[in-house]
Amino acid sequence: MPLPSQLLENAVADFAKLPGIGRKTALRLVLFLLKRDVNEVEHFADAVTSLRRDVCFCRQCHNISDDEVCPICADTHRDRTTVCVVENIQDVMAIENTQQYNGLYHVLGGVISPIDGIGPSDLEISSLVDRINEGSVKEVIMALSPTMEGDTTSFYIYRKLAPTGVKMSQIARGIAVGDELAYADEVTLGRSILNRTTYDG
Amino acid sequence: MPLPSQLLENAVADFAKLPGIGRKTALRLVLFLLKRDVNEVEHFADAVTSLRRDVCFCRQCHNISDDEVCPICADTHRDRTTVCVVENIQDVMAIENTQQYNGLYHVLGGVISPIDGIGPSDLEISSLVDRINEGSVKEVIMALSPTMEGDTTSFYIYRKLAPTGVKMSQIARGIAVGDELAYADEVTLGRSILNRTTYDG
Repeated sequence: MPLPSQLLENAVADFAKLPGIGRKTALRLVLFLLKRDVNEVEHFADAVTSLRRDVCFCRQCHNISDDEVCPICADTHRDRTTVCVVENIQDVMAIENTQQYNGLYHVLGGVISPIDGIGPSDLEISSLVDRINEGSVKEVIMALSPTMEGDTTSFYIYRKLAPTGVKMSQIARGIAVGDELAYADEVTLGRSILNRTTYDG
Repeated sequence: MPLPSQLLENAVADFAKLPGIGRKTALRLVLFLLKRDVNEVEHFADAVTSLRRDVCFCRQCHNISDDEVCPICADTHRDRTTVCVVENIQDVMAIENTQQYNGLYHVLGGVISPIDGIGPSDLEISSLVDRINEGSVKEVIMALSPTMEGDTTSFYIYRKLAPTGVKMSQIARGIAVGDELAYADEVTLGRSILNRTTYDG
């Protein structure tokens, strides 16, 4: 059944374009906003447009930032010789949450995916090469998702950076903490045996 | 970990106020919008604010409408002697989708729920009583959800409308089509036996 109002239809159609939001959820969200105060709804709309219009990206790591250099790159207590290459800002936050990493980041803004029309030139790869060529970085840690696209991107970057002679590593792959061995997939389990760590290591 | 940008933080906080949207989902939605064209994002924001500012409600049934009278109330082919009382516009759409009902509606805008501070005066109940008092309606069908709040509201309206002498009915409750009898809850199964329908009826 079509919605009884064109205004409602427009708002629902726009919400339904968001990832993971279908028409039913979109309608629920829109009707929720409809019950809110006008000021609150305008605040919501302003927050979205001003973010899109005024957003900055750190000129060094390309993470979202309010200034030219993001808080992580500006932090003098961090190890400036190590750079962790990630797909997007959520990955930066996930790694920061572990509190196990004290180096800098480089946000690619995606991974190479021919099926989605995303090639190396759409990502922050040349800026990464420039950054390594400056010479102060000693190690590059590849922390992309272990998918076909992630592995392709890692390999592409590996080939691009090999001439610079920088040390390159990849985050460990294996059985996740808390997983049942019997239910782990064969590839992961197989790799976890090949890449076993010694107790004294 | 706090977000690296205040603009991002504001947008995420506003999205996370929507029902069923947590901070992680909010971040995903906001980052999606960030990758869209500026015009597209402004269109999204406009759709939301203009809906909130310019929305109308049908003066007869209180459904959302672009005009003073909604398409359902304006439709001369519908049975104007039957009114179906529902909680909200989603319920109107759900019933319309069944294509089994040809009467009019009355949208309460919620149900009586003291715990949420919603009393009878917050709902379109007095306008329903006025509408029935006009005399052209012959039957009122209560189609509220079979919850504590829904039943309380149905009973309250039943008491309010009883003096008018209008015929009142309630949508059938019983085993849902496709349900396994063994897994049905006791109250529903018990009621479905008490309210059994005869084959010739």
